[in-house]
Formats: sequence, C-alpha cells, structure tokens
Amino acid sequence: MSFKLHPILKKDCIELGQLELCRVLLMNDSQFPWLILVPERENMTEIHQLTTNDQQLLIRESSYIAEKLALQFQADKMNIAALGNMVPQLHIHHVVRYKTDKAWPAPIWGKFDAVAYTDKELEVTLDMLKEFINSREY
Amino acid sequence: MSFKLHPILKKDCIELGQLELCRVLLMNDSQFPWLILVPERENMTEIHQLTTNDQQLLIRESSYIAEKLALQFQADKMNIAALGNMVPQLHIHHVVRYKTDKAWPAPIWGKFDAVAYTDKELEVTLDMLKEFINSREY
Repeated sequence: MSFKLHPILKKDCIELGQLELCRVLLMNDSQFPWLILVPERENMTEIHQLTTNDQQLLIRESSYIAEKLALQFQADKMNIAALGNMVPQLHIHHVVRYKTDKAWPAPIWGKFDAVAYTDKELEVTLDMLKEFINSREY
Repeated sequence: MSFKLHPILKKDCIELGQLELCRVLLMNDSQFPWLILVPERENMTEIHQLTTNDQQLLIRESSYIAEKLALQFQADKMNIAALGNMVPQLHIHHVVRYKTDKAWPAPIWGKFDAVAYTDKELEVTLDMLKEFINSREY
C-alpha cells in the first residue's frame, strides 16, 4: 500500500498509532484535546468516496475515539468534522470542547494559532492517549 | 416514538423528508447549499451515543446525501460536521463548499447571518432536493 500522510498533517501532528482503517494523529495544539483520524486509503478527499465497508469501519473507529476522548477529558461536547478545505487528504477531526474553552461556542478551526505542547505536557498526554489507542476495544 | 425536533432547528430550517434513521432539513440560508441530518432518536447529543446499528445507518445516509449534494451542486468540497455547541440535539451538517464562496477556506459556522431563500429560490431548491431524498437509493 502506498498511502502517504499529507505533509501538512505530518508537520502539524504527532502520530499516535493505527486502528484497522485509520491512522490516529494528535494535533500539536495544547489548547484543545484534538485527535485526527486519517483513513489509510489513497486519493480520498470525501467520506462518501470510501467503500461501504470502509465507511462502516470509519464510524466505528470515530465513535470509539470520540467516546474515549469524551470520557477521559470530561468533554462538554465533542466536535467531529470532515472539512478538508485546506488539506485535501480525507481526515476527520475529533475535538474535545468545553463551555469554558477560548473559542466556545464557535468552531475552533482557523481561529487561533496552535500552541505546541511542551515536552512535559506531551509526555503526559501521549501516555494517556496511547493507552486507549493500543487497547483497541472497539 | 416521541422524538421532537429541537425548536431552533425547526425555526432555522425547512423539513425536506425522512430517511430510515434521519430527518432531513434544509438550512434556510441561500448562501450555502446546506442540509442537516437529525437522527430521530431521543436525547442524543453525540454520534457515539447511537447504537452500532444506528451509527451504520447514519454514515450510509450521510454519505448518500453528501454524494448527491456534491454532484448536484458541483461542490469543490463537502464539509460534514457534528458540532452541537449551540443546539444540543444531535444533528450533522452537510455543506457544499466552493473555493469562491464567501467563507472559503474557513468553516461557515457562526461567520455570517443566514440569508433566507426567496420564495422563488426555495421552490427551485426544494424541487431539486426532494427528488433525491424521496428516491432513497442508498
């Protein structure tokens, strides 16, 4: 398989692991707990271009990730979105939102420059997230 | 079933029809071709709260609607999102985007006040949309 992660996703994110369909990325922005799922299929830009089987895998993986994030981070709301106006490679955002976060109730995209995690923050966050990605109980 | 559409969705949208799981709404904003799917299940705020079966119906219906919209309106990109920061009832946006639209490449939510369709525009749009919702070939 010659799937390659888009260079912007590679630059902006930290790779966390892989589910059956998707590569799981952490957006390197400490302002919002924010994971991105990228179906490992070539030349996809829209969910509806995936096969029916891949679509069903996608919603299973997306819901697994969303539920785990919501619990782990005590989200007020999850924001799930396939936008891709800037980066065409199909990718699905999973963002933990709080009524107290700096963008609430607006969507977060394009609002604030990312604030990269410090090494210490990243260590804690990665430990937490890798555990539920590697457990794969979806 | 005592499912009731949230009053804000009722006020802002025009009901187009029903699929197996979702009610289909047209956002009354002539600036963007914009459909909203609302799973007819009570007290849902997140996709991951739906049963596995309902999740699979949802992605099937969502992809059907997205593909039809993309074709019919010759979209440059579809934006698909479950946000719900303002209206808690689970609903999934399906927005046709163009590189020439007034918000591109930013997301559209919370950016511009809606511009309601004129009666004439609405007639044309509804005719077009109802046809593919009532055909239900998904």
